[in-house]
Amino acid sequence: MTALLGLDWGTTSLRAYRLGADGAILERREAPAGILQVADGAFEAAFRRAVGDWVDAAPDVPVLAAGMITSRQGWVELPYLACPAGVAELARALRPHELAGGRQIWFVPGLSLVGGDGVPDVIRGEETQVAGALDGAPDPALLVLPGTHSKWVLVAAGQVTWFRTFMTGEVFAVLKAHSILGRLMTGDGHDPDAFRRGVAYAGSAGAGLLGRLFSARTLGLFDQLPASGIGSYLSGLLIGTEIEEALHGSPHTAMDSVAVVGSSVLAARYVEALEQRGLRAARAPDDVAARGMFEIARAAGLVA
Amino acid sequence: MTALLGLDWGTTSLRAYRLGADGAILERREAPAGILQVADGAFEAAFRRAVGDWVDAAPDVPVLAAGMITSRQGWVELPYLACPAGVAELARALRPHELAGGRQIWFVPGLSLVGGDGVPDVIRGEETQVAGALDGAPDPALLVLPGTHSKWVLVAAGQVTWFRTFMTGEVFAVLKAHSILGRLMTGDGHDPDAFRRGVAYAGSAGAGLLGRLFSARTLGLFDQLPASGIGSYLSGLLIGTEIEEALHGSPHTAMDSVAVVGSSVLAARYVEALEQRGLRAARAPDDVAARGMFEIARAAGLVA
Repeated sequence: MTALLGLDWGTTSLRAYRLGADGAILERREAPAGILQVADGAFEAAFRRAVGDWVDAAPDVPVLAAGMITSRQGWVELPYLACPAGVAELARALRPHELAGGRQIWFVPGLSLVGGDGVPDVIRGEETQVAGALDGAPDPALLVLPGTHSKWVLVAAGQVTWFRTFMTGEVFAVLKAHSILGRLMTGDGHDPDAFRRGVAYAGSAGAGLLGRLFSARTLGLFDQLPASGIGSYLSGLLIGTEIEEALHGSPHTAMDSVAVVGSSVLAARYVEALEQRGLRAARAPDDVAARGMFEIARAAGLVA
Repeated sequence: MTALLGLDWGTTSLRAYRLGADGAILERREAPAGILQVADGAFEAAFRRAVGDWVDAAPDVPVLAAGMITSRQGWVELPYLACPAGVAELARALRPHELAGGRQIWFVPGLSLVGGDGVPDVIRGEETQVAGALDGAPDPALLVLPGTHSKWVLVAAGQVTWFRTFMTGEVFAVLKAHSILGRLMTGDGHDPDAFRRGVAYAGSAGAGLLGRLFSARTLGLFDQLPASGIGSYLSGLLIGTEIEEALHGSPHTAMDSVAVVGSSVLAARYVEALEQRGLRAARAPDDVAARGMFEIARAAGLVA
């Protein structure tokens, strides 16, 4: 018995979930229909193609969508909700949008935060994943959501009180594809020793990242790192640096445990790096977005 | 009267100097004949094309070459000379190479240093520029040579005692050309206010670079930075971060003056950023490579 239809609609992909009364995932779909793949703003057509049969088969079931679908390039642009905010605030901020035929879809807004340094930061989609990852989490809980733009999120008493975006994944990708470091790399295999060496260097005292990147070249030059390990070394150096920055930048600097959201290979690397640094790393599954939408829908009274 | 022919032979260009008895530049040439432009190792032919007439017209004059021409991809690969090293050590390490017809060319080696963190670093070409930039410099002197890979060099009692490579220029280039930040940028003009804001952010306490890059997006998103200023802001953030890292990483942390080598637009930005940070920035001209080759040749007894 379907209780909720949820769409985790990002930049490059659309993940759809059909959820039961207790939030269990009854069915899931994934399509390469991210907002960048939808031409001319034809989001409702894309929505129908993805889950039209689900919608028609469950005429009284609420539909929620979260992610970049609410950005300026998406279907309906929503302003960011200012932190601190949790499931209750997200539920109150749900924005209904009427579909052809009168059915409604509810959009979940992203969050904004002005950091202690006066600079604003934003998340859009991750707030929903975080909402679904809190079951059994400590309080406060520090979470990391690895990706092109990795997000670290601190949750206290059920509310997001701090977060920060790290461009680690994108920096790695552009250095690999377009810099001298990438031209030195051979192969795509993971080299655990090289990765650990990068993480260790990131965690040692001394220079910052700009003055350390070149080590990916010089260690090879002096035969201390095989060319096949340069990619893993750079990955370890960048992820390790991110971890140092995040732990140092979080208002709760005494956290000894971090929840890593996702089941990707990248998430596994974060677990390795965190454990190397002596932290406990708990894994949260990919489906936290579905769970988060269910929690928000329940807080909004859309599901029982 | 020609006393020395000097070639500053880098990756993308070849600069040649005809120097007088006191090291004065009598004539200069620049050709797009960097080592990457020379096919099939035909360096001697490229050399003849660039300065064959000079060489023939001054049969008894020594010829020096410095830069990437002594790298593995260059004409004659030279091992790095370990620091500390100055003009005297570079002069002793000159490597002669016999040209067709029996004439010699002398190659200047680069320098290597194992940092306090155990990681090796290298320069090749900058050691000669530094040798030419010390006239009138304080002791110790801290120099920065801006570029794709910016080099900071500390010279004490005439010897290079520390240096560090920062990949700032390349990081900026790949982020501008290939990242989301570059896609947000409009125009190529310099925005002094945006640049200063980036430098100021880099110098403030708090997160590191990976957690600050995204501000180039969010400040625009919240209308605190025009799209036309994002490039200058990112440049200021990166150069400012490099300055913080270099001043913090140098063994002489109390330096209040930095010599900026070069007359490029980029060098001017470093002067602006240093002065914004309250440091004195002295400019050293581009032709320090010619002066450096003259000093090394003199120390080697090749010129009077």
